[in-house]
Amino acid sequence: MKNDFKIISFDADDTLWINETYYQEIEKEFIEIMSKYRDVVSVTDSIHEREIDNLEIYGYGAKGFMLSMIETALDVSGGNVSSVDLNRIIEMGRGLINEDIVLLDGVEETLIKLSEAGQKLIVATKGDLLDQERKLRKSGLEKYFDHIEIMSYKTEKYYLDLLNHLGVKPDEFIMIGNSMKSDILPILNIGGYGIHVPHHTTWAHELVDDIGKQDKLWVVENISEVAEILEV
Amino acid sequence: MKNDFKIISFDADDTLWINETYYQEIEKEFIEIMSKYRDVVSVTDSIHEREIDNLEIYGYGAKGFMLSMIETALDVSGGNVSSVDLNRIIEMGRGLINEDIVLLDGVEETLIKLSEAGQKLIVATKGDLLDQERKLRKSGLEKYFDHIEIMSYKTEKYYLDLLNHLGVKPDEFIMIGNSMKSDILPILNIGGYGIHVPHHTTWAHELVDDIGKQDKLWVVENISEVAEILEV
Repeated sequence: MKNDFKIISFDADDTLWINETYYQEIEKEFIEIMSKYRDVVSVTDSIHEREIDNLEIYGYGAKGFMLSMIETALDVSGGNVSSVDLNRIIEMGRGLINEDIVLLDGVEETLIKLSEAGQKLIVATKGDLLDQERKLRKSGLEKYFDHIEIMSYKTEKYYLDLLNHLGVKPDEFIMIGNSMKSDILPILNIGGYGIHVPHHTTWAHELVDDIGKQDKLWVVENISEVAEILEV
Repeated sequence: MKNDFKIISFDADDTLWINETYYQEIEKEFIEIMSKYRDVVSVTDSIHEREIDNLEIYGYGAKGFMLSMIETALDVSGGNVSSVDLNRIIEMGRGLINEDIVLLDGVEETLIKLSEAGQKLIVATKGDLLDQERKLRKSGLEKYFDHIEIMSYKTEKYYLDLLNHLGVKPDEFIMIGNSMKSDILPILNIGGYGIHVPHHTTWAHELVDDIGKQDKLWVVENISEVAEILEV
């Protein structure tokens, strides 16, 4: 399509760079550590439940994840978790915050093409403000974006606030991201467009069921297909 | 002065509502809890040092404070901190996040006067995005503000970005807040104006030495004096 979008918006974690993989590696090690106190299935269920329960109070991001692991460790061990194990959990969390940024395939070429075509690009990401700013700076991608929006939650209400703040109508806005639930569905529901770039390790919490027929949605294998779709 | 400010910006914590008091109460209880493992002076020094050291990795806010307490507890107890004590620390932190918002004296009247005079008001606060949004919503003050800016750090660079983003020049901008270091000095240094409303429990880390003679700065006892200064 010849595109008339005023703003092309990108999700960040697992759309521009690897993120969830690091969380999964740490979660795996966490479960291993805790398996000396309780069976693997109980530990796995407990950490997943705790993460979801804590989203409302802690939001997304590494610090909330650290606190969820610590709370789960105290809980599933019946208070017997050793300080060595707790220190290792904290160390893993701090490592996560300082993790190197590894860009996903095709990301930088796509941003260059879109920028050179004069498109206005933004990042709309959820998570911890400080973490997301740090990741964007480390990624070297800051220069391609006109605006960075860090959202507490990616719901229709928050996207409407964002569009309002940017002064664009929903059909002038397209969102590109790996999460159908956070990046695509709310945008389609408010009348915008979406390009879904599924990521192989999308978090279980982020998966949604069949979304029905949609004429404002594309699903692609690799982000490099975005430039073709938008005909730049 | 008859004011020509295009934007009047308020800090939030300890300028609009009580905040630091809650942190200090929890810190006091934390030190009491830990005093069974180590002397009070060492515990106090350790938690303060840890908080400062962790600012770069965790930023401001309740979650970073919780992690600093947990790390300090493991450290000063030589790994002997009990799970009962760790659970109490986590419980205190969660309570902090869910704390009621108590407005400071004169705040709402001042915001009403300025709003009715047609001044454009914003909040510029540092800290955790989710926490600050929640506090603002709970405060009932959201309706007086045109824009809420949550900043990772309150340095000259971040303020310049904010002014740029808002499209105003430094001398069209005045910042009102309780912290000389975070709210006033960086603004004066980039050519803006400031009204300092000292708060009785300003955090030791926030105190600065003599700032010399300044003609763009007022210091007031109570925020209600702001309306007089700005002649609205």
